[in-house]
Amino acid sequence: MRIDDSWRRLNAPDFSPYSRLDPETSITLLGADPFAPAAVLPPHVIGAVKDALDQGRTHYSVANGFMEPVLRDALVRKLASFNGMDVDPESELIVVPSAAFALYLAIRLCVRPNQGDEVLNIDPGFAENFNDVQQIGAVSVSVPVHAEDGFQLRAAEVEALITPRTRCLLLTNPNNPTGAVYSRQNLEELAEVAARHDLTVIVDQAFERQVYDGIEYVNFATLPGMAERTITIFGTSKDLGLSGFRVAYMVAPREIVDILKLATFNMHGATNTFAQYGVAAAYDDPGYLDAWLEIFRTRRAYGQRVLDAIPGVTCPLPDGGFYFWADVAELGGGEAVRDHLIDDAQIGVLPGTMFGTRGADYLRIMYGTVADEARYVEGIDRIAASLERLGARR
Amino acid sequence: MRIDDSWRRLNAPDFSPYSRLDPETSITLLGADPFAPAAVLPPHVIGAVKDALDQGRTHYSVANGFMEPVLRDALVRKLASFNGMDVDPESELIVVPSAAFALYLAIRLCVRPNQGDEVLNIDPGFAENFNDVQQIGAVSVSVPVHAEDGFQLRAAEVEALITPRTRCLLLTNPNNPTGAVYSRQNLEELAEVAARHDLTVIVDQAFERQVYDGIEYVNFATLPGMAERTITIFGTSKDLGLSGFRVAYMVAPREIVDILKLATFNMHGATNTFAQYGVAAAYDDPGYLDAWLEIFRTRRAYGQRVLDAIPGVTCPLPDGGFYFWADVAELGGGEAVRDHLIDDAQIGVLPGTMFGTRGADYLRIMYGTVADEARYVEGIDRIAASLERLGARR
Repeated sequence: MRIDDSWRRLNAPDFSPYSRLDPETSITLLGADPFAPAAVLPPHVIGAVKDALDQGRTHYSVANGFMEPVLRDALVRKLASFNGMDVDPESELIVVPSAAFALYLAIRLCVRPNQGDEVLNIDPGFAENFNDVQQIGAVSVSVPVHAEDGFQLRAAEVEALITPRTRCLLLTNPNNPTGAVYSRQNLEELAEVAARHDLTVIVDQAFERQVYDGIEYVNFATLPGMAERTITIFGTSKDLGLSGFRVAYMVAPREIVDILKLATFNMHGATNTFAQYGVAAAYDDPGYLDAWLEIFRTRRAYGQRVLDAIPGVTCPLPDGGFYFWADVAELGGGEAVRDHLIDDAQIGVLPGTMFGTRGADYLRIMYGTVADEARYVEGIDRIAASLERLGARR
Repeated sequence: MRIDDSWRRLNAPDFSPYSRLDPETSITLLGADPFAPAAVLPPHVIGAVKDALDQGRTHYSVANGFMEPVLRDALVRKLASFNGMDVDPESELIVVPSAAFALYLAIRLCVRPNQGDEVLNIDPGFAENFNDVQQIGAVSVSVPVHAEDGFQLRAAEVEALITPRTRCLLLTNPNNPTGAVYSRQNLEELAEVAARHDLTVIVDQAFERQVYDGIEYVNFATLPGMAERTITIFGTSKDLGLSGFRVAYMVAPREIVDILKLATFNMHGATNTFAQYGVAAAYDDPGYLDAWLEIFRTRRAYGQRVLDAIPGVTCPLPDGGFYFWADVAELGGGEAVRDHLIDDAQIGVLPGTMFGTRGADYLRIMYGTVADEARYVEGIDRIAASLERLGARR
């Protein structure tokens, strides 16, 4: 068939090694959503979806820019209280079917395919940031971040990479996979660069709630002058554990919101109607997430202590998210150690090579997605025992 | 902001005239789903979604190519019994969040943006067929169809429009807005052209169930040699009345299914999990649609009889879909008559100019989307009275 041949060369994650995991005995610390598949959502969330179904909220949701009014109002309240963002829902907010969709849409809006347009991509960074740019037909330019900086940005390095072809910068905050939460100073320096070079900044805040130890979380769009050039993407999968609902939202400059709505209409249409009622209920009463955060804190502390103590492994405490970014270079690097853990310990983790071009030394180890505590502790302990064996052998 | 400026020029439907409709007294015969917002879905469909919620089917649906097994199995049965398509779900089927998404994805797969690639678009045709091509950055080439042929295709005219830049042909069957159901002979001739020129054919079967008077419905992909070059798109909004669920599916050649899955993963991710259970239940027990079809038949007969009798209006019986395509050239053409109906009768219908480049003489009048029968009859009668006044005045 005659297709766009560039799509035959899309960067496809290789999950074939994981077929060596035994479904019975293996423990996976990979994606995707909190505690899946065991997480039980609170009754008020499930009840809101059921009520919507009973009330016939089963039709295409087209009013108000694809937002059911109950969700629109809940999002405005959440954005004000949680993010410090005062948003006009008519002109600055759009509901979309997933954060992945929002990310693809935002990048595509900024670039002209097949024209050599460049996207600045923090590296290591979220796999889809790189894959989307490739699929759209733009050029990903890696912005290196460094372990010795805690993977914070160096604004001068960002600025040095800007060319006449640069269109936008992708910022995942907290970063996935490094766990870095960008400091106010870091973001203020980035804001200066963005203003100086008329750069659009696309900020993915999927893990904005999972920030630890009282570290300040700065919403980039709230910095002076940045609301006019920032597209902020919010998801409900990581934030609320509603990954199967497929509801996300974007805050964008009013100059482009009508274009985003029209492009979304063409590319997808409305978001699931009754699911929106569940998301609204979760944001209006998010207390269940306190217990989840407490579990994340406990797991983070335990996992980091055990992993960092393994000879040949360096695993700092991550600022945010619910994963570790562990340097295993001394043990052979991410892919070799990933393979070893599958075969030696029946443990599934991701190699850093899945997160840009600078992750070869690393493993990403998810601590937020395992169903229960005993299983999590066993997973971490098995990694420790297995990597100690590996280190002793080398 | 620096964005792709071609997106500032996207063809946006102008709905501003409809703001002159009074919500209380007006009757709209526009989009979108059957009987909305009054349609009551059967208890087994709603119940299946609720059961899925109770069973914790709230997580990201990633197994089996984004299909919950219950939906996968229901779709394989439906495709065999309804469409005569024997489909391997592992290698030929993909579940996506909407038919609009499937259409955009399929076109994008075929063309290389900003390279002058051409898409053959039957004209008049579905508005998104034209708008998607524009948004993607390809060139829409209109294939004219003619009232005197009942808007069937002329294969020789298709062939004459093929150039080295032609990548694919979009076929909406039944056509929206003309209501044409393409005859076997028509499609066989098209198949010969497609084979001769290595053309991919993208077939949107949104209205495949609403075919009247025993007219044969041919699934293009079942013609000899066509499964290898046809992407067939199926929706559940028009077919099952599940527009708020956001579940659709595609059958495609196995050569490209992995690419479609990967592209979908990047562009959107999985489809709503619990909604999939409702769709499966609807397909496994679609008896409620018999009553809907009976209503469509009654409305079609009544509306066509009344509209075609209006002096200056030609409105043949449509083969399929649930809308009329009425020639109102003698009364001033689609946009003028649309404006007149808003101001004179508080009736909302779409002008043919929204459906490609050849619809200026026409109105599309939806008969399937009005909530109840009395309202529908009043709507048609108001159109007749108002257009008789208009004709007398001219």
